[in-house]
Amino acid sequence: MPIYNAPTKDIQFVLHDLLKVSEQDIPGFEDLDRGFTGAVVEEAGKVASDVLHPLNVVGDTEGCVMENGVVRTPTGFKAAFAQMKDGGWTAMDCDPEYGGQGLPYVMHTAAQEPFVSANMAFNMYQGLTHGAYSAIHAHGSDAQKQKYLPKMVSCEWTGTMNLTEPHCGTDLGLMRTKAEPNDDGSFKITGQKIFISAGEHDMAENIIHLVLAKIPGGPEGIKGVSLFIVPKFIVNDDGSLGARNGVACGKIEEKMGIHGNSTCVMNYDEATGYLIGEKHKGMRAMFTMMNEARLGVGLQGYAQAESAYQNAVAYANDRLQGRDVTGAKNPDGPADPLIVHPDIRRNLMDQKSFVEGARAFTYWGAYLIDRAHKNDDAQADGLISLMTPVIKGFLTDKGFEYATAAQQVYGGHGYIEEWGMSQYARDARIAMIYEGANGVQALDLVGRKLGQDGGKHVMAFFEMIKTFIKENEGHEALNADFLEPLKAASKDLQAAGMYFMQNATKPNNALSGSYDFMHMMGHVCLGLMWARMAKAAMEALEDGASDTAFYETKIATGRYYMARQLPATSMHLARINTGGDTIMALDAANF
Amino acid sequence: MPIYNAPTKDIQFVLHDLLKVSEQDIPGFEDLDRGFTGAVVEEAGKVASDVLHPLNVVGDTEGCVMENGVVRTPTGFKAAFAQMKDGGWTAMDCDPEYGGQGLPYVMHTAAQEPFVSANMAFNMYQGLTHGAYSAIHAHGSDAQKQKYLPKMVSCEWTGTMNLTEPHCGTDLGLMRTKAEPNDDGSFKITGQKIFISAGEHDMAENIIHLVLAKIPGGPEGIKGVSLFIVPKFIVNDDGSLGARNGVACGKIEEKMGIHGNSTCVMNYDEATGYLIGEKHKGMRAMFTMMNEARLGVGLQGYAQAESAYQNAVAYANDRLQGRDVTGAKNPDGPADPLIVHPDIRRNLMDQKSFVEGARAFTYWGAYLIDRAHKNDDAQADGLISLMTPVIKGFLTDKGFEYATAAQQVYGGHGYIEEWGMSQYARDARIAMIYEGANGVQALDLVGRKLGQDGGKHVMAFFEMIKTFIKENEGHEALNADFLEPLKAASKDLQAAGMYFMQNATKPNNALSGSYDFMHMMGHVCLGLMWARMAKAAMEALEDGASDTAFYETKIATGRYYMARQLPATSMHLARINTGGDTIMALDAANF
Repeated sequence: MPIYNAPTKDIQFVLHDLLKVSEQDIPGFEDLDRGFTGAVVEEAGKVASDVLHPLNVVGDTEGCVMENGVVRTPTGFKAAFAQMKDGGWTAMDCDPEYGGQGLPYVMHTAAQEPFVSANMAFNMYQGLTHGAYSAIHAHGSDAQKQKYLPKMVSCEWTGTMNLTEPHCGTDLGLMRTKAEPNDDGSFKITGQKIFISAGEHDMAENIIHLVLAKIPGGPEGIKGVSLFIVPKFIVNDDGSLGARNGVACGKIEEKMGIHGNSTCVMNYDEATGYLIGEKHKGMRAMFTMMNEARLGVGLQGYAQAESAYQNAVAYANDRLQGRDVTGAKNPDGPADPLIVHPDIRRNLMDQKSFVEGARAFTYWGAYLIDRAHKNDDAQADGLISLMTPVIKGFLTDKGFEYATAAQQVYGGHGYIEEWGMSQYARDARIAMIYEGANGVQALDLVGRKLGQDGGKHVMAFFEMIKTFIKENEGHEALNADFLEPLKAASKDLQAAGMYFMQNATKPNNALSGSYDFMHMMGHVCLGLMWARMAKAAMEALEDGASDTAFYETKIATGRYYMARQLPATSMHLARINTGGDTIMALDAANF
Repeated sequence: MPIYNAPTKDIQFVLHDLLKVSEQDIPGFEDLDRGFTGAVVEEAGKVASDVLHPLNVVGDTEGCVMENGVVRTPTGFKAAFAQMKDGGWTAMDCDPEYGGQGLPYVMHTAAQEPFVSANMAFNMYQGLTHGAYSAIHAHGSDAQKQKYLPKMVSCEWTGTMNLTEPHCGTDLGLMRTKAEPNDDGSFKITGQKIFISAGEHDMAENIIHLVLAKIPGGPEGIKGVSLFIVPKFIVNDDGSLGARNGVACGKIEEKMGIHGNSTCVMNYDEATGYLIGEKHKGMRAMFTMMNEARLGVGLQGYAQAESAYQNAVAYANDRLQGRDVTGAKNPDGPADPLIVHPDIRRNLMDQKSFVEGARAFTYWGAYLIDRAHKNDDAQADGLISLMTPVIKGFLTDKGFEYATAAQQVYGGHGYIEEWGMSQYARDARIAMIYEGANGVQALDLVGRKLGQDGGKHVMAFFEMIKTFIKENEGHEALNADFLEPLKAASKDLQAAGMYFMQNATKPNNALSGSYDFMHMMGHVCLGLMWARMAKAAMEALEDGASDTAFYETKIATGRYYMARQLPATSMHLARINTGGDTIMALDAANF
């Protein structure tokens, strides 16, 4: 049976030693002292370990079942969902006007991590609801907010996002679902949507579907897409539930993983829908929530790796196999534990240095979202907009890679479902695909974000690294192990950016390198996080922190990342510099 | 429904343009002309596409079921297995004395590839039998060979390999299964073996288990392990089947993939076993077949990537999504096919250049095995011994990576089991684990093979590259695109070897770099293959070959590999040069 323990100490380190949240001039951050955040994360960790994690394997094994149009979630999900609601965990960063607790997004993120690590499929029911809440909150009318948000904040009603159709995912301009106006201002929604997570289930009284559709006569393509609220049960003006709407789950998909979440084909047959925001501006409404949604998926990536890592460490300490090549470490036992072997450690250090770097990167992103929203800070907004595809793409690629690496530590047992390691890999796999496949993230990064506002944000990012290096170059302990590798990696990244600029007239040259650039930038971001974390850890030690082992381990883990992971940037640069010729060389028929 | 078509043309290219098999001075190779090999591979391809591939999804979905101790294979497996037997596909390279066709191993490999691509789980039933056949053939007595081999060659009886026990896999010295002598020279085998592929099933009259066990009173650890034949039904002297032996399947494991193969817990309860070869020399008997077995697993790695690639290409040509950034390619349609997008091509070219390079590498390995065995060529033997961990480790890591990459081309549909792409990834995953986990392969490479016979074989490998470069440096078309990158990569590999030599007294420094070295060497091997294939393709074009598109595509694909994959060697070298300090820094308790 797999284990999970929330990494409370590390989350606290990121919030306080690294981000110094309580010192930030952002409304609400003044309350985020160590005592408060520690209590919240610890409590979230308890729910994660005691309630959600035991249901992770159950969800994987049982999956969701549809019988006579009714979707049944796995055993125990309903009771656990009730506990999540009762504990107020679904309302943490929501608007107090609608029953939320109004906490910063970074606090929401810190509390979410244990839930996602413990049971990704389960947590998606509230995760999707949160996304739908955000869309209505940002773009709905006051009446719509009053009607839907309080019950969504409490998760009495859950939410969904309906974008994909059988013939279109990335290219939503091809959408066929139509929205025909009714006389009362509502619309008749007709069409089929697929891959709808939490599309139908038995854990909520009502499900509020957000649906993209085209109003006939509108502009062609993506510019003619509007966003609608389509409740499963029509909500009367007094808040009571009325008639069943014309929307039904046609099928539950059999997937590689996240079996505990019901991924539905949703059929809309003249369902009543209510326009959110302006006609034909549906994509804009979607885009405003994308930073949050994609950060949430990036979190899923490393959170699965975190869970897998914890189990791999336990197994490596437990399993006796072979002897330390430098001399037996467990001479009285039949063999030494796996963890004595250098290649096992290499594998574990890869995982550990990634997960901790990814956590810092993600929380920093959440902090930027808070700063952008609560302080109306355009610079923070530009920066998180730039970082979003990297958080999503890099952290989910690596999250899957390391969940798979953790599975490898188990040898043959890693392949047997009973041991639970396969599930981490299978669940993590989806994060590379949904919310914009990672190739699309790379395209977004190189094709849109780099040049956004005249390239201002990427320049600010480079400046931030330069400043950090400059400010600390006298810091001997940081210099060789952290600043030098960061400088080299950042130089590689800038050279790649330069290559793209020089090839602006040959878009295939730049786009051929987009995926490499995304990974390169991911490494530079994690490198920056590690340099900052190392500095923070060194300061804590200088200040006489009692938990020296924690801080020394932090520094050693950072050294590993800088020494062994950052050299990847030069490989990515070498690839980028080869341009698009070898990539575009073949006729389609010759593949 | 996934597709599969045997890459007959490419297999023929590797056999004839690259390896020039019919010109080799190896007994039996003189018969391998284009007509013969083409007919065999084409026929194997037909069986693969028509018989085995349709059962691939069936096997994954149904799995193997045990009821009342009887294991039922998936629907259709029995009939397909009969077809394989009747077609003589199980006997191809076996000894004619026992009913085999006596063809070279390279021919067996070429015929196996389509079977493995089409249905890996199914093909393991005969694959394991072949392994058991080889062990008995190499180490059994004449009487044992007469008794067991003819029925194993025909696959009327299948075979298994029993090594792993619940508490030991890599470290077989910890083995507990015991073999107590009977008065008649046989042994009583008692113990539990796990992860036994094809351990019990309904497709053969008898199952010949090869079992490692310890004879009480023998040497401690791995030196006290002996190898036994333990038939499911005792075979009488007249060849008829006698009593049921004391061996039974305790359980079928639920696995991440290869559901069509029954992975069994096998319980031995005073089962009658017959010693093969000498007492306590069981591991030696196992090792002599390891080159073949590991090459077979390496083949599984790239063969799954090949299947996944074929489907990804079809989907990329079929699925309309977005527009070519340089101008619409399908202006009359609603969108362009995916394959116009540079990042999709990057992904497909990664897959294609790997699979074709891996095929060449594997067939070259098979050719070396033939040369070693049939010509008693010590140099070939040393070379394949060096290459074996690379073929196994590198090709299975990359095979899984690219099967996953092919899945990514499908977007959301890649995650839905119905589309079949998840299965390729799930099936490919096991190849990184069994037959020695890839970390163990890296250890074997760096800890044993590099220094074997005074480092003679790795020196010979470097010499081979040097000679090839020297012989062709006047070849302008090869030089910049192939020879220069090969030279650089080979230099990196030599530098890594040098680092290991200099750190011979600090084994953790070398072992910390073992995994990187294995991948580095994999890239250099594929780089060498690509340089040779490019040369062969250029010669074919000069000689006026009619299929110019095939040869030009081959050269372009090679250029891609050299430009975009070989730069990985410098990253691996940079990692290796950091030694073991960052890897060994943490106390086990601080992970």
